Amino acid sequence: MNPLKQYLKANIDLITTRLVEFASIPSISAERAYAPAVRQAAEWVAARMQAVGLRNVRIVDTARHPVVLGDWLDAPGQPTVLIYGHYDVQVVDPLGSWQTPPFEPQVRNGRLYGRGVSDDKGPLLTAIEAVGSHLAVNGRLPVQVKFMLEGEEEIGSPSMEDFLRSHAIDLACDVVLSTDGAMWPPGRPSLSVASRGMASLEVVVQGACKDLHSGRHGGTAPNALIALAQVLGSLRTPEGRITVEGFYDGVAEPTECERAEIAAVPYSEADYCAEMQLKPGFGEPGYSLLERQWVRPTLDVVGMGGGYQGEGIKTVIPASAWAKISCRLVSGQDPHDICEKITRHLHAHCPPGVHLEASIKEGGVPAYRIASDHPGLKIAAAVLQDLYGEAPLVVRIGATLPVTDAFRRHLQADTLFFAFASADEDYHAPNEFFRLQRLEDGLLGWAEFLGRMENMDPALMKGIKSHDCI
Amino acid sequence: MNPLKQYLKANIDLITTRLVEFASIPSISAERAYAPAVRQAAEWVAARMQAVGLRNVRIVDTARHPVVLGDWLDAPGQPTVLIYGHYDVQVVDPLGSWQTPPFEPQVRNGRLYGRGVSDDKGPLLTAIEAVGSHLAVNGRLPVQVKFMLEGEEEIGSPSMEDFLRSHAIDLACDVVLSTDGAMWPPGRPSLSVASRGMASLEVVVQGACKDLHSGRHGGTAPNALIALAQVLGSLRTPEGRITVEGFYDGVAEPTECERAEIAAVPYSEADYCAEMQLKPGFGEPGYSLLERQWVRPTLDVVGMGGGYQGEGIKTVIPASAWAKISCRLVSGQDPHDICEKITRHLHAHCPPGVHLEASIKEGGVPAYRIASDHPGLKIAAAVLQDLYGEAPLVVRIGATLPVTDAFRRHLQADTLFFAFASADEDYHAPNEFFRLQRLEDGLLGWAEFLGRMENMDPALMKGIKSHDCI
Repeated sequence: MNPLKQYLKANIDLITTRLVEFASIPSISAERAYAPAVRQAAEWVAARMQAVGLRNVRIVDTARHPVVLGDWLDAPGQPTVLIYGHYDVQVVDPLGSWQTPPFEPQVRNGRLYGRGVSDDKGPLLTAIEAVGSHLAVNGRLPVQVKFMLEGEEEIGSPSMEDFLRSHAIDLACDVVLSTDGAMWPPGRPSLSVASRGMASLEVVVQGACKDLHSGRHGGTAPNALIALAQVLGSLRTPEGRITVEGFYDGVAEPTECERAEIAAVPYSEADYCAEMQLKPGFGEPGYSLLERQWVRPTLDVVGMGGGYQGEGIKTVIPASAWAKISCRLVSGQDPHDICEKITRHLHAHCPPGVHLEASIKEGGVPAYRIASDHPGLKIAAAVLQDLYGEAPLVVRIGATLPVTDAFRRHLQADTLFFAFASADEDYHAPNEFFRLQRLEDGLLGWAEFLGRMENMDPALMKGIKSHDCI
Repeated sequence: MNPLKQYLKANIDLITTRLVEFASIPSISAERAYAPAVRQAAEWVAARMQAVGLRNVRIVDTARHPVVLGDWLDAPGQPTVLIYGHYDVQVVDPLGSWQTPPFEPQVRNGRLYGRGVSDDKGPLLTAIEAVGSHLAVNGRLPVQVKFMLEGEEEIGSPSMEDFLRSHAIDLACDVVLSTDGAMWPPGRPSLSVASRGMASLEVVVQGACKDLHSGRHGGTAPNALIALAQVLGSLRTPEGRITVEGFYDGVAEPTECERAEIAAVPYSEADYCAEMQLKPGFGEPGYSLLERQWVRPTLDVVGMGGGYQGEGIKTVIPASAWAKISCRLVSGQDPHDICEKITRHLHAHCPPGVHLEASIKEGGVPAYRIASDHPGLKIAAAVLQDLYGEAPLVVRIGATLPVTDAFRRHLQADTLFFAFASADEDYHAPNEFFRLQRLEDGLLGWAEFLGRMENMDPALMKGIKSHDCI
């Protein structure tokens, strides 16, 4: 057994105890009342970083919650790895559904239960301890390492854009390794290689100057709700293909190889439909269920309203109506361009007699995809293969990870999700847990990963090369 | 000057004083706290009916507010007239917008200001006093008279259906004369001959079993809001013609004569559009503005909602969405049949992947139209001609008057709106007023009308004969 592995296995109980201590701090970033606990968690993290031998450890304030930085840069000529994670946690409601208190972590059946243990305190601590094992065993790290651990992930990282802009030089790196993320499907090793982007807009339709009585004015006053329905109803075919002109411009069809990669993920469409109680008939023709969720863009109306909202009927012709539209984007789509195309469609399909106004929401994010020939990806796959005795599944994320885009823009670096949490661990829900086996796997995996990065040519990690299969 | 006229003119100040007293009672039927005041108003009315010489005056309880009945049936062989009105009033909100307190009526510039003076206490008292003038001057009435004055009109007359069913024999009559209603346009004598009916339904669309994250499920979960938009958007053409199959079945085109009658009403479409800030382009092609409001059926979505209702964007795929639909009907349309046709349309246009459920609301009302050759209408027109020196305009009501349908079903009698309120008197709004000149006109008009009904053949008033012009 190599000395790193030996060291980590010898320390696993101690590390588990540290995680229990860390997860006992109620660092709920969404609730102002918990701001002191969020800072306490930042201080805990900083102390642990210091203890394992990281240097320049510091807590940097932002408009909301602080970022913890630290580094070890004594391996000149080696690649620079920026390790990203977050020490804040989700809210705990509904509290009554927890079997044990969320901030009194308990082990049951090989699982540690508590808020934040899976998302992201367990994985974050894993990375610190893995770095620590190299320093303890070898007195050095195989690569240059920087840490950036935020406290706002669960509230959408509002300070990260400014923080990365102002710390771009400090944080310069060749690749970002994220502790955050999750393997999916649970129980199988997997690597996420892509996530969808996002673009959103709001639309308001105005008819007459005020709501009008449907008896007096019915037949002459335009109905803002019907106008809005006509506009929104025109955005998709009944099956869900988006009809906005140019929406799919630049969107590449999945290659045979990508389709095979996706098809290799064991997944029952029938089980999914049964679980979500989906009736047949919806879904863009020509794509499998996972393809629709991973490599096809979407357009959804996420909220809509207008007119009388109470019980029964009020005979009114609503003068105004509103809707919120949100898209998930894939490679080849620019968020602002998509919003402009949708805006043009909305105006083109607006019936006469009403005024339509669309406003593009800030914060659009393009889709993210790590280059399929990124050397970090190959190493991660090899590490997982060795750890689990099987090749990892290559999966994608239908959701949006804004931080990946921010890292790419401000640091010109790709982000690799080297995640040991599992997608079924009820993060964001009561009774969140983290499999203790995955804590051990993560420690060994991260230590091994850093070792294999040694002597890699940093130039190979820069710039998108290929987006086909790994 | 005839003795009736002389009597009424001599008593006009006294009658005005009585109206001030009557209108001081806050008989707001919608607010439970005012129930005692509603009863007090019923008692005031009953006392006044008794005082003018009506017989069998009684207050009959209903589930909510009482009905005041009374009669004078000492003219055997003469037509029986049922006089309808209501002694309850609208709420007074916003109270701060009243120049003088709503229940402290005041005269300013020939107008009496106060809640209920125009709708319907002034007109109701007019009818009682006009009947009283005949009894005072002649000791008798020219026709058989019954009164039925309700206290629930402003809350939709919920007890009237049961009341008319159980009192159909008591209230048997040849024609109903309504004190309620209003002349329109203001300043010109007019007679309303028709009102539109109403039919309403609610629709709910359900997709998945619960709201789903648009990142994880976008592309595979149907969007209830888009499905609802597609369904609702299909109900009308962009200009507003209703596309429901069979919706216009049985709807007669307005005759040349009716169109001329409507065209004779002085009305500026341009002023209307400017006042309501309507943009051009909406309205069923081939009809004038008043024709669209009076003789064409409508379909409106009066309320709609679903998904995220807060600020900003929430990336959710709404599982359910709802809408409320309400129609105004014209002659030839049955409310239930229309609702069934709309329901069929909704199901036929529902996209795959969602479940749609439509529920027809109770309380549908067919359109109403008094027979154009109804002798009461001719008399009313002649009385107005004599009173104002010009022929009354023949107008229609775009709204719905459920009581007309109830009178027709339970009493087999047409209702004639012999109204001296004006449509601009801010009933249902702050600073409601009644023109004192119209109080005098009404007294003379009602007294004259009753006189001219003498010796009319009741058979002529029964059954719908013609629906062309008067």
